[in-house]
Amino acid sequence: MTFEQFTTVFGNVVEHCSLCAAAVWQHRPFTDVDHIHQLICDVLDNFPNDAKQGVLCLHPDLAGSVAGLTSESQNEQKAAGIDSLTQDERAKMQERNTSYREKFGFPFVICARKNKTQAILDGLKLRLQNNIEEEVRNGVEQVKEIALLRLFSIVEH
Amino acid sequence: MTFEQFTTVFGNVVEHCSLCAAAVWQHRPFTDVDHIHQLICDVLDNFPNDAKQGVLCLHPDLAGSVAGLTSESQNEQKAAGIDSLTQDERAKMQERNTSYREKFGFPFVICARKNKTQAILDGLKLRLQNNIEEEVRNGVEQVKEIALLRLFSIVEH
Repeated sequence: MTFEQFTTVFGNVVEHCSLCAAAVWQHRPFTDVDHIHQLICDVLDNFPNDAKQGVLCLHPDLAGSVAGLTSESQNEQKAAGIDSLTQDERAKMQERNTSYREKFGFPFVICARKNKTQAILDGLKLRLQNNIEEEVRNGVEQVKEIALLRLFSIVEH
Repeated sequence: MTFEQFTTVFGNVVEHCSLCAAAVWQHRPFTDVDHIHQLICDVLDNFPNDAKQGVLCLHPDLAGSVAGLTSESQNEQKAAGIDSLTQDERAKMQERNTSYREKFGFPFVICARKNKTQAILDGLKLRLQNNIEEEVRNGVEQVKEIALLRLFSIVEH
C-alpha cells in the first residue's frame, strides 16, 4: 500500500482525523489490526490537550442532524438504535447533548456500537457530572474503542 | 462562527490537517491572524514526533502530479514557478524529491511562495544532507510559514 492508499482506507478510523492514520504510516510494517490500533492509541495519548479536544470536536452530535454524517457514524448510530428513538428519547438525548456541549465545549463521544439507547442516555447523565479533564480522558478512550471497531470492519471486508 | 464554519474556512491552513484548526477552536476569541497562527504553531510543536512526520506526509510532492492538489498547493506551486519549469529543472527537482523521500520517508516541504525554482532546488540539495531530526524540525517550520501565508490569504479575501 502507498501512503495515499493507506490514508484513503484508514483515514477515518478516527473521525475526520486523517492525521492519526498519517502518523501511524511510518511504523509499518504492521503485524495485525491490534498493532495499528495500539499505534493510533499512542498518537492520541501523546497529543497535546487542545488537539485531544480538537479530535472530540470533529465528532458529530448523537441524534443530531443526519446531514453530513460520515457513513461510519451513520452505521454506528443505527447500531445503537438512534435512528429509531421515540420522540421522548430523542428530546432527552438532544437536551443532554446540548448541556454536555455547553459544559465542556465539545460533543459527547461514546462508542455507539457498544451502547444501546438507554446506556447512552445514562452515560450522558453520569458523564455530565465530571470535570473537563475527566471528560477529555473519557472521550479519548471512547475514540479508541470506536477506532478498534472501525479497523475490524475495514479488515473484515 | 460555528465550529463547522471555522474548520471549513481554516481546515486546510495546515495541508489536509483539519485537526490543527479544530485544536485551535477552543482558544477563541482570537485577537488577529497572528494569534491564530501562534496557536497553530503551538499545536504543531506539541505534536508527538510521529504526528509531526504525519503532517509532513500529508503534503504533496513539489513538481509531482497536479491531480488531486489542493487549490492552495496549486497556487503556491505556481507562485514559485513550478508550473513553468524547464524540462531539465523538472527532472532535477523530481530526482532530488525522490532521494529526499527515500532518505526521510516524507516529502520535501518548503514554503513555495517564499522560494523560487532555484532556491527550491538549492534547498533540496542542502537539506538532503541533514539527519531526520533536523528535517522534521525544518519541515514543520516550513509548514508554519505556509500556514501564516494561507491565513493571510483567507483573511484578506
